[in-house]
Amino acid sequence: MDWDQLWIEVNLATMDPEQPGSYGEIEDAALAVKDGKIAWLGRRSDLPEFDPFSVPVLKGNGQWLTPGLIDCHTHLIFAGSRANEFEARLNGATYEEIARQGGGIQSTVNATRAADTESLFHDARLRLNSLLKEGVTRVEIKSGYGLDLDTERKMLELARHLGQLHPIDIHTTFLGAHAIPSEYQGRDNDYVEHVCNDMMPALAADGLMDAVDVFCENIAFDLDQTEAVFKAAKAHGLPVKLHAEQLSNMGGSQLAARHQALSVDHIECLDEEGVKAIAQSGTVAVLLPGAFYFLKETRKPPVDLLRQHQVPMALASDFNPGSSPLCSTLLMLNMGCTLFSLTPAEALAGVTRHAARALGVQARCGQLKVGFDADISQWRIGHPAELAWQYGSNPCSAVYKQGQPVRMP
Amino acid sequence: MDWDQLWIEVNLATMDPEQPGSYGEIEDAALAVKDGKIAWLGRRSDLPEFDPFSVPVLKGNGQWLTPGLIDCHTHLIFAGSRANEFEARLNGATYEEIARQGGGIQSTVNATRAADTESLFHDARLRLNSLLKEGVTRVEIKSGYGLDLDTERKMLELARHLGQLHPIDIHTTFLGAHAIPSEYQGRDNDYVEHVCNDMMPALAADGLMDAVDVFCENIAFDLDQTEAVFKAAKAHGLPVKLHAEQLSNMGGSQLAARHQALSVDHIECLDEEGVKAIAQSGTVAVLLPGAFYFLKETRKPPVDLLRQHQVPMALASDFNPGSSPLCSTLLMLNMGCTLFSLTPAEALAGVTRHAARALGVQARCGQLKVGFDADISQWRIGHPAELAWQYGSNPCSAVYKQGQPVRMP
Ligand SMILES: [Zn+2]
Ligand SMILES: [Zn+2]
Repeated sequence: MDWDQLWIEVNLATMDPEQPGSYGEIEDAALAVKDGKIAWLGRRSDLPEFDPFSVPVLKGNGQWLTPGLIDCHTHLIFAGSRANEFEARLNGATYEEIARQGGGIQSTVNATRAADTESLFHDARLRLNSLLKEGVTRVEIKSGYGLDLDTERKMLELARHLGQLHPIDIHTTFLGAHAIPSEYQGRDNDYVEHVCNDMMPALAADGLMDAVDVFCENIAFDLDQTEAVFKAAKAHGLPVKLHAEQLSNMGGSQLAARHQALSVDHIECLDEEGVKAIAQSGTVAVLLPGAFYFLKETRKPPVDLLRQHQVPMALASDFNPGSSPLCSTLLMLNMGCTLFSLTPAEALAGVTRHAARALGVQARCGQLKVGFDADISQWRIGHPAELAWQYGSNPCSAVYKQGQPVRMP
Repeated sequence: MDWDQLWIEVNLATMDPEQPGSYGEIEDAALAVKDGKIAWLGRRSDLPEFDPFSVPVLKGNGQWLTPGLIDCHTHLIFAGSRANEFEARLNGATYEEIARQGGGIQSTVNATRAADTESLFHDARLRLNSLLKEGVTRVEIKSGYGLDLDTERKMLELARHLGQLHPIDIHTTFLGAHAIPSEYQGRDNDYVEHVCNDMMPALAADGLMDAVDVFCENIAFDLDQTEAVFKAAKAHGLPVKLHAEQLSNMGGSQLAARHQALSVDHIECLDEEGVKAIAQSGTVAVLLPGAFYFLKETRKPPVDLLRQHQVPMALASDFNPGSSPLCSTLLMLNMGCTLFSLTPAEALAGVTRHAARALGVQARCGQLKVGFDADISQWRIGHPAELAWQYGSNPCSAVYKQGQPVRMP
C-alpha cells in the first residue's frame, strides 16, 4: 500500500456512527494517511500488507486517536478586558450601574474599534495556541465587536489571516447583528438596514464571510430583524446560524429552521415545537455550557427532547469576554456532562462530528473515516470517557493536520 | 545595594494587607531578591541606588508579579481512572449500582495499592507540571488512597520525593482516616485504632507527615473517631486539619477549632456557631468550588458569615479522581468567584496569603514582602482581577522559586 504515514499500536475513537460503540471505538487499531486524507483504518489484525521500508510507521504506545476537536462557536477576536465589570459585579454593582459606566458589549466594541490589527492578531494567536494544545484543529470565529463596516471587516480579515497562518482552520461568521451600536441607539431598524444593505455586500465582495449569525433575543434583535438579515445572507448565497432562545423563547429557532440554518446556539429556553422544527430542518443544536455557568443560568437546554428527536448536539466554548471568558474546548466536555448531563460520548461527538455539521463540513471533518481529512489528535488516556471526566492536566500528546504533525507553539 | 536580582517595569499584587488596595498593589514597581528572599520592593521611583553592573536587572514590560500560587488541598497522587463511574452515572446508573460494581474511593484505593511507584510518580509529576505552568509553586498532597500502612507510606514517601525533585514545594498530609477500607468493613473503630496506634507512629518515625487530616462526615468518620485521630496527631506534635461540614453539619469544625486546626475544608454546611469557633481559633476556611461544581451541590459555604467574622478564606482544587477531577488551581479562582461569589481579590488571597496560612507557612510564603521567600509568578495581564475573570489561555509567563527562574517542563 502506497501510504504517506501509518499509525499502529493505537486505539481509535472514530466518532463514526457506522462503527460499533458510542465512540465508534476500534482498539488495537491502525490508521493510514495518503495525501492528507485517511486512506485506511481498522483493526491492526486486518491491516493489508504494506512495504515497511517505504511507509513511515508511528507507534502510538496504546494512546488514543480522535478526530481533531472543533470549536464551532467562539468570539475569539476581541480587544480589552472585562475583568473590571466582573470585579464590580462581585463587589455588588448592579448590571445597570455597570452599563451606565460604559460596560457590556459596547465596551468591547469600543476597545476593538480602537485596537490596532497587530495587537488583535497577537491576542487571538495566543488564544488559538492554547486551543491547539488541547487538540483543537478547527475553530469558528465571529465578528460582532465592530458594529461598523471598517471594524467588522478588520475582524473578519484578521480571522481569514489567522486561518492562513495558524495550524488551526478558521471558519468566519459575520455577526454584525450582535448588538445595536451606541451611534444607532433608538434606530434599531436603521442599523439592521445598514447591516443588510451596506456591510453585507461589501464583506461578501471580499469573500470574508463563511456564514451569517444574529443575536435574536429580547435584549437584542427581534424576529423581523433576524429574518431581514437571513434574507440578505441568502441573497449572497451564505448559510445562516442563530444565537437563539438563550434568555427567552422568542421562536428564533423555528425561524432559523425555516431558513435551513446550520445551527441554533444556546437554546436554554427552546420548547418542543422548536425542537421539532430544527429536527426537521437538520439544524444542529449548539450547547454552550460556559455561558450557562458564567451567567449562573438555571434553565438548561432541553437535552432529553433533543435526544428524543435525534437532533445532533454540538458543544462549544462561546469564548467571549462578557459571558464566557473560558478559552478551553476541553473544559466544555466536562461542563457539558456536569452541567447539562450529556454523556461523555455525546460530549465528544459535540466537539467532533456534530460540530463539523454545525460548520457545514460534516462530509470531510469530525470523524476518523476513510476519505476524511487526516486532522487527528492523540491522547494519553486509557479510555475516551477520560476526556470529559478529568480536566486540567492536558492529556493531548500530539496534533496532526492533514496527516502532518503540528509543531506546538 | 548588594542584590542577586532586580525586577523593574513590573506591577506587584503583593497580597500584603499592609499595602494599599485589595491586592496590596504597587504599580510601576521594583522588586529585589537576595539569597532567595525578597530584599526590597516598592515604587520604582523609591528604588535605592544600586550598581547596575553588579545586579542583573529583569525588565517586566508592564507585566504583573504575584506570590507563587499555593494549592493547599489536593489528593494529587492516585492511580486509576474513575471515568467509567462518571460515564456510568451519566448513562443513568445510581450511586448504589456503582458502589456494587466496586466504584467509589475503594476503587481508587485498589488501583493505588496495586500501582508501582514509578507509574504513580510519573502521573503525579505530570499533574504537578501542569500546576507549575499556571504559576503554582506550593502544593499540599494528601495520602488516603492506601488505607493500609504500606500504601499510605508509599504515597507519603512519593510526595516527599516529588518535593525534592520537582520545582513545586510539597506539603504532606496523612489522611489514613479517609474511608474505611473494605477489609475493615463493620469494624470502624478497629480501623481508627490501627490508624492511630500503628500507622501514625510508623509514619511519624520516618518524618513523612507535615499534618494529619480526617474526613469527618456521616458517610465517613464521626466526631469521636475524628478526635481520636486528632489526639494521636497531637502526641506526635503534628498539626491537624479536617474535611468538615461538606454534606451535613456534624460539628466537626468546632472540634477542629478546639484542636487549633490549621484549616477546615469544604464547610458548605457550616453554621454561625461553627464560623465563630474557627474565627476564635484562627483556623482557615478552605473553600473547594471544584467539588461543589462536580458533585452538583446546591448549598454554598457561608461566605458572608466568614467575611463578617473575618475568617481567612483559602481556595483550593481538592483535585481527586472521585469528586473533583479538576487539576487546575487557576480554574478555582474563576469558580470561587462564579460559584461562591468571592471577589477576585478574595480569590487571589485564597490561593496565596490564606493558603499559606492553611499550611502554616504564612510567616514566609503567600505574600510579596521583604523577608519572604522569593517564590514569584509573572503574568501577562493588565490587572490582577483578570486572573479570576478569564480562564484557559494561561497568562503565566514565568515562575521563580527563591528568586531563580524555573525552567518549564
Ligand atoms: Zn456567542
Ligand atoms: Zn479533599
